[in-house]
Amino acid sequence: MGCVQSFRDLCDREKNTNVRISLPAVCFVWQIAMIILFGVFIRYNEESSPFWIEHRKANNISSDIENDFYFRYPSFQDVHVMIFVGFGFLMTFLKRYSFGGVGFNFLIAAFGLQWALLMQGWFHSLDYSDGKIKIGVENLINADFCVAGCLIAYGAVLGKVSPVQLMVLTLFGITLFAVEEYIILNLIHARDAGGSMVIHTFGGYYGLSISWMLYRPNLSQSNRLQGSVYHSDVFAMIGTLFLWMFWPSFNSAITDHGDGQHRAAINTYLALASTVLTTVAISSLFQKHGKLDMVHIQNSTLAGGVAVGTAAEFMLMPYGSLIVGFCCGIISTLGYIYITPFMEKHLKIQDTCGIHNLHAMPGVIGGVVGAITAAAASEAVYGHEGLINTFDFEDAFKNMTPTRQGGHQAAGLCVAICFGVGGGIIVGCILRLPIWGDPADDNCFDDEPYWELPDDEESIPPVLQYNNHMRNKDVVESNFSMDQSDSRPRV
Amino acid sequence: MGCVQSFRDLCDREKNTNVRISLPAVCFVWQIAMIILFGVFIRYNEESSPFWIEHRKANNISSDIENDFYFRYPSFQDVHVMIFVGFGFLMTFLKRYSFGGVGFNFLIAAFGLQWALLMQGWFHSLDYSDGKIKIGVENLINADFCVAGCLIAYGAVLGKVSPVQLMVLTLFGITLFAVEEYIILNLIHARDAGGSMVIHTFGGYYGLSISWMLYRPNLSQSNRLQGSVYHSDVFAMIGTLFLWMFWPSFNSAITDHGDGQHRAAINTYLALASTVLTTVAISSLFQKHGKLDMVHIQNSTLAGGVAVGTAAEFMLMPYGSLIVGFCCGIISTLGYIYITPFMEKHLKIQDTCGIHNLHAMPGVIGGVVGAITAAAASEAVYGHEGLINTFDFEDAFKNMTPTRQGGHQAAGLCVAICFGVGGGIIVGCILRLPIWGDPADDNCFDDEPYWELPDDEESIPPVLQYNNHMRNKDVVESNFSMDQSDSRPRV
Amino acid sequence: MGCVQSFRDLCDREKNTNVRISLPAVCFVWQIAMIILFGVFIRYNEESSPFWIEHRKANNISSDIENDFYFRYPSFQDVHVMIFVGFGFLMTFLKRYSFGGVGFNFLIAAFGLQWALLMQGWFHSLDYSDGKIKIGVENLINADFCVAGCLIAYGAVLGKVSPVQLMVLTLFGITLFAVEEYIILNLIHARDAGGSMVIHTFGGYYGLSISWMLYRPNLSQSNRLQGSVYHSDVFAMIGTLFLWMFWPSFNSAITDHGDGQHRAAINTYLALASTVLTTVAISSLFQKHGKLDMVHIQNSTLAGGVAVGTAAEFMLMPYGSLIVGFCCGIISTLGYIYITPFMEKHLKIQDTCGIHNLHAMPGVIGGVVGAITAAAASEAVYGHEGLINTFDFEDAFKNMTPTRQGGHQAAGLCVAICFGVGGGIIVGCILRLPIWGDPADDNCFDDEPYWELPDDEESIPPVLQYNNHMRNKDVVESNFSMDQSDSRPRV
Repeated sequence: MGCVQSFRDLCDREKNTNVRISLPAVCFVWQIAMIILFGVFIRYNEESSPFWIEHRKANNISSDIENDFYFRYPSFQDVHVMIFVGFGFLMTFLKRYSFGGVGFNFLIAAFGLQWALLMQGWFHSLDYSDGKIKIGVENLINADFCVAGCLIAYGAVLGKVSPVQLMVLTLFGITLFAVEEYIILNLIHARDAGGSMVIHTFGGYYGLSISWMLYRPNLSQSNRLQGSVYHSDVFAMIGTLFLWMFWPSFNSAITDHGDGQHRAAINTYLALASTVLTTVAISSLFQKHGKLDMVHIQNSTLAGGVAVGTAAEFMLMPYGSLIVGFCCGIISTLGYIYITPFMEKHLKIQDTCGIHNLHAMPGVIGGVVGAITAAAASEAVYGHEGLINTFDFEDAFKNMTPTRQGGHQAAGLCVAICFGVGGGIIVGCILRLPIWGDPADDNCFDDEPYWELPDDEESIPPVLQYNNHMRNKDVVESNFSMDQSDSRPRV
Repeated sequence: MGCVQSFRDLCDREKNTNVRISLPAVCFVWQIAMIILFGVFIRYNEESSPFWIEHRKANNISSDIENDFYFRYPSFQDVHVMIFVGFGFLMTFLKRYSFGGVGFNFLIAAFGLQWALLMQGWFHSLDYSDGKIKIGVENLINADFCVAGCLIAYGAVLGKVSPVQLMVLTLFGITLFAVEEYIILNLIHARDAGGSMVIHTFGGYYGLSISWMLYRPNLSQSNRLQGSVYHSDVFAMIGTLFLWMFWPSFNSAITDHGDGQHRAAINTYLALASTVLTTVAISSLFQKHGKLDMVHIQNSTLAGGVAVGTAAEFMLMPYGSLIVGFCCGIISTLGYIYITPFMEKHLKIQDTCGIHNLHAMPGVIGGVVGAITAAAASEAVYGHEGLINTFDFEDAFKNMTPTRQGGHQAAGLCVAICFGVGGGIIVGCILRLPIWGDPADDNCFDDEPYWELPDDEESIPPVLQYNNHMRNKDVVESNFSMDQSDSRPRV
Repeated sequence: MGCVQSFRDLCDREKNTNVRISLPAVCFVWQIAMIILFGVFIRYNEESSPFWIEHRKANNISSDIENDFYFRYPSFQDVHVMIFVGFGFLMTFLKRYSFGGVGFNFLIAAFGLQWALLMQGWFHSLDYSDGKIKIGVENLINADFCVAGCLIAYGAVLGKVSPVQLMVLTLFGITLFAVEEYIILNLIHARDAGGSMVIHTFGGYYGLSISWMLYRPNLSQSNRLQGSVYHSDVFAMIGTLFLWMFWPSFNSAITDHGDGQHRAAINTYLALASTVLTTVAISSLFQKHGKLDMVHIQNSTLAGGVAVGTAAEFMLMPYGSLIVGFCCGIISTLGYIYITPFMEKHLKIQDTCGIHNLHAMPGVIGGVVGAITAAAASEAVYGHEGLINTFDFEDAFKNMTPTRQGGHQAAGLCVAICFGVGGGIIVGCILRLPIWGDPADDNCFDDEPYWELPDDEESIPPVLQYNNHMRNKDVVESNFSMDQSDSRPRV
């Protein structure tokens, strides 16, 4: 800990948030790299190439509707909405960081999905006959999933990092994700349709570890901007609702055709409904006068979707889904009330969006629920073919049994945690280098360093405005004349 | 009326909006009840259980794409968006009740859909061989539909009730809905794909009757908050547009596979387009200087979708859809201009969102249009098989004729109205009991009693702020010190 | 030019924005005309009529899932969202024109799609056996596409025209679109799945030409309202993101079943991802301190979707899509920085939303990319059947070769530009007639002339408010008493 602290101090110098060289440089270089790598490696797969017609006839596929596009495209679009509108708007809740919330989310998701197509492609979709990655709609969904892990991590450091740091966080995050996913799904042969372990546990601990490395001891003194205003909370509800509504698509997007997708959607739908009620109950019970807290409604209502991710395709049973949602609503809301302040005070982890309560904890619960459900599977419940099909007991894993599968699930969960924590610490070290243009404590949770802001005096409370004007008048008189286009007073 | 009034007076006591015990209690008890009932009754159906593979082979179903999931899931997700974002954001238009609009909508929908799965399951999906309800994606859609009835009712009492009252309203609403639906669809054998009668007529009159029972004679004196601000109107347009766009999915979600879904979508698309034009026309014609009123654009543009609900799957013909939309745009907008003020003044019905104009009246029109269209059906227009298939003239109803079907449709409409009015009066009586924590007249349309609000002085006009500060200073000085965390001045 | 100027002067008289007669009249007359024309011409097609069952059996179609509804409905709904929420909310960015942005978009889209069904129906879906237009889900998509052209044009004149002018713009726009589309797709036999030429190039130049004809030389003096506020920029991001996310559905909605739809979605997904990075890079590089500009993020990030429209269904290859997106992000952002101010200053084209950078230029690029990709096609890449299928080398075009197809594509692009510029000039002349109720320069970018506005003092900066009050007190004292319901001060 002492060594970590001294490394922190080493890196804590005067902050310069000017990213005029570094941000364009990173964007250009990486995008050009993507073009080259796509040129070398990425091709259409059988179902998205014009040879589909001949392939169809040769394989006696009766109709174009059998193209995987029609099985998965509606789910893909729902997932896509979750990534860009769901995560993006959920992060607009801060009063003066809505541009950064939705805008940087957009930027890193757009970069991340390209890199994810490559990384996941090398592990999962490489055609060894010609050394090319063959992509179709399922790859697009997986790329969006992969990006989700990094967007979760962004939630922990929201408002405290520069866009360049976010690009770095994403580059490493996607890379770690793809490796971790390969180990968990292919080597360990754990099942994780909705990504409780692979996406949420990994993404959560990855973000928390980075936030720990980037701890800002004096941040609480400048937390004037670390809160919402009335309308920013309504904007955040857009994110919440699109995440909530489309979570059944998230958990069912890459499960088996037919009953797999069907069951995963039902289980997720039920778990989420249950979570809403217990979130409201705990939120009301623990506030004075029984008033509800928007932070809980915006976040904890989603915990059930996370926790049901692994087991959604199993025979969790409808009441099982309700129970999972029931518990997660309670745990996640209590997390916001007790654990987040505790972590900030005692563990030096500042978690802006509370991803520990929304992703990390529910993700771990999801992994455990998945292991138990898998271990309890039997032919009586699944049928002979159903069991093989659901757990993919084929080829090298022909002799797998449900109990052993349960153990493998638990092993997968451990791998996800290790990758999250370990990767986060390493990437956090890199992000502490004083070259990334991150904001000073005073500029945290403020769009001002990275965005041209419109002139709207009224969105700052009049009392504050007066104070600001006074302070500015004395201190940074010259600053005003320089920056007249931007009449918003700054602190 | 005298008796009703005296009952009202009896219940009008000092208001205590603290729901810290009652709300968590209701949420916990009901959610636990749901878990138990789901445990006893709810199972996956053939298409969502792992036995699907064997079922498919046994029934010579050539492909997984024949699973009902792929026929209905995209429509389900659209309906889901309508329920949570559509209804939710449509109710954010009030300047200080956006949290309540979208938040309580979220709460009661999440509870309602669980109870609806059970209630509708007992009536429609009970497998008598083992006494279990077997659910699939169609049940999820129907549960969302069922919830819609209660959300419509919420529109009438928006801002005037406590969350506990809303939970009660929903519990009884879902119950009544399921019974009414069973009578109309199964016993009377009326067809109602888009729920003009079953959902909108019932929901509309249910809400209006409750609002009548909960009449607040002095409410108009405190209506400072019963209006919108610029940005809350834009938020409400999110709700409007998602309802408008996805209404074709709503009306086609549970119609017959193939041409049924196809035709219902086309008819709804056309009716809604037509409604927009007449709504704009009437709105402009009846305002001074021809200015448009956002209330009309937000609500009346949707009336055509309601009114075409029953007949959408019939051969209404494209021009028929346009005519229905044309009339409903006019009637609904005139309703906002003349009928809503009339009802408030003379009938003691305070209808916050104007659900009479958006759901009740168009719902009745929809029932009538459905009856006429059904009565006019013939083999020349539908074909022999098409007629049987569209109207489900099978089994016990093998000898049904279109003219008789028209009569049955009309009977269904009457049942919906009776259940709505009767149920609403009874539930309204229950909700008048002085135990539910509903707000005083002064606290209506205000999020303050039930939500922790962020500090944002600027969302109250400066002039008002000054007055409030002055008033507060004199009157509730002590209150301030108690509640320092919430610096928003209250009236 | 002199003649154009004198025509402009001729029309520049005292402005009266009262549309109380004209707007309702136009809406009613046109909607009634639609009903009559639909009654005469429009019927359900085979797949949406009850004869589908018999048709299915007669044609050995094994399942209802083969109904075109299931191939296209999810894409249709995505396109529908783009038209109403995407375009609508993208235009809410102005601080006091959000109602007009989203509301008039709603009005003209709802009218336009009806007229588009007729115009496109006459050209493409007329059943010569009975003289009726037979519609199905593909017609609905095409109608939405057709409307998109007019909504693009609206972007150029946003805030400067009356709703009646917009209805006229739409009537002529749809008519021109249908003719132009018929020439390009059917006579010239160009392919244009995503409408780079047919929709974006045409719509862009149509709007720019109209804006040129409606040039307001003194507008810059009153541009107090031609900007955004913080929350209106966040609203606009809703539009941006829904356009961005659903663009793969836009470009794949009417391509061939199977690999065509699949490939178009992948290409668009990739092009858009690439555009985001270069947009961010250029935006940061050209602003002082490297700050990002919301205008670029809201608009230029979409340019890649436009530019890949024509070639999306071809074998553009994944890296090709990235390259197209890469270039468009740069060009479009530079357009906002240099070309839009240049056009306003030197070419007398005031382009409120910058459609030249978002639609016109990328549309032309898309046409060129399409021509090149088509000319480079070969059987080696597409396969024999694939080539015929992708480019529709059948019937009259059996002897077409890829190189000739490339020429035809280029010819199509020229037709689109000609129709856009020519049609825009003519329609612009019509719109200069002093009968349409367009706003005076002082009332531009203001919802006040056409909308009843809620009382919210706080959405005008306090400083401005004071000035306004003072000015109003002296000058338009009488105006206040007349309009008490609307307490918002006006300039």
